[in-house]
Amino acid sequence: MTVTADLAMSLDGFVAGTDVSLDNPGGDGAEPLFEWIHNLASWRERQGLSGGEENRDSELMREWFDVTGAVVMGRMMYDTGEEFWGDNPPFRTPVFVLTHRPRRTLVKQGGTVFTFVTDGIHSALDQAKAAAGERNVDIAGGASTVRQYLAAGLIDELQLHVVPALLGEGVRLLGGLDTGRRTLEVVRVVDTPLATHLKYRFTR
Amino acid sequence: MTVTADLAMSLDGFVAGTDVSLDNPGGDGAEPLFEWIHNLASWRERQGLSGGEENRDSELMREWFDVTGAVVMGRMMYDTGEEFWGDNPPFRTPVFVLTHRPRRTLVKQGGTVFTFVTDGIHSALDQAKAAAGERNVDIAGGASTVRQYLAAGLIDELQLHVVPALLGEGVRLLGGLDTGRRTLEVVRVVDTPLATHLKYRFTR
Repeated sequence: MTVTADLAMSLDGFVAGTDVSLDNPGGDGAEPLFEWIHNLASWRERQGLSGGEENRDSELMREWFDVTGAVVMGRMMYDTGEEFWGDNPPFRTPVFVLTHRPRRTLVKQGGTVFTFVTDGIHSALDQAKAAAGERNVDIAGGASTVRQYLAAGLIDELQLHVVPALLGEGVRLLGGLDTGRRTLEVVRVVDTPLATHLKYRFTR
Repeated sequence: MTVTADLAMSLDGFVAGTDVSLDNPGGDGAEPLFEWIHNLASWRERQGLSGGEENRDSELMREWFDVTGAVVMGRMMYDTGEEFWGDNPPFRTPVFVLTHRPRRTLVKQGGTVFTFVTDGIHSALDQAKAAAGERNVDIAGGASTVRQYLAAGLIDELQLHVVPALLGEGVRLLGGLDTGRRTLEVVRVVDTPLATHLKYRFTR
């Protein structure tokens, strides 16, 4: 059972722009982070769209969908995605949403089931592990949720899609984590003109 | 004429540790940034040492020495390096040191000449360009010097040697630069177990 996190990051370390809010989930100035995704065939397929590019970036996106058996996300990510994802969300797996407000489980089309977890990150992870079967649990976001799991030492593999852009300001994923100094090993590097896909495993 | 900057950076964006000072130039906790360098044959050769590894990392280090025709550095980097570099510094090119205190030019063995520039970053760069001939000018550091040149839009190519470690805190190279949002293109990616060598060119 591998616990993963997988985010797009600017070269200067930002995973979202400024003034992130429910109406502005990526934040201002964050467009360069996500431009490489929009036209990938594997991404479009999960949005119910046809066409798109079948390239190495698209393969990596498909790989994420294939290897992920359950997802954990923060309440903010859920709230900002809920409407966009619609009746057939792209996950097609159980999704565990960290929240303080109890809410009934939501069964969507295609296999996505949203379960709202009110008793903390360990509980959400345990439930996700139980649901994932042989596949991975991915801590999907947002940044503060991933940081909580990183700080608790609960993430095994971290994949960063480093886009060749400087945002200058925004929300950082890394730095200032309470874990102190940690070493990782490089699992895989895939570089394309759109992004450098860096996959690391934490060494204990 | 290409103006370059070339630094080792942790995955979380730090190019030095904490409490950087004359006696502690890399800062506390910065060891993982530089471990990959110490045993490279090309690096050892420039320190007057024999042996070391002849690997891809060593080739990249040798490439830097070969393509660099002049160097610009901040006063802090000079002061912290002066004693360590000794009578035959590794640069073997003209080096222009940014400072507020005039000082006589120092001619060292092997081709290294330290010129102290008191009239600002543009002057130092102009002098370095004139001295570099057909080769590159490299803005060697420290972080605040490279940031000044980045903010002024004077760097053409940025190579980052991303080491698979999280420092947690220290001196950042990127983020918060006044240039605002900038895009880059990936020139080259070389990954080894020691570091992921990412080379970017700024697009205007």
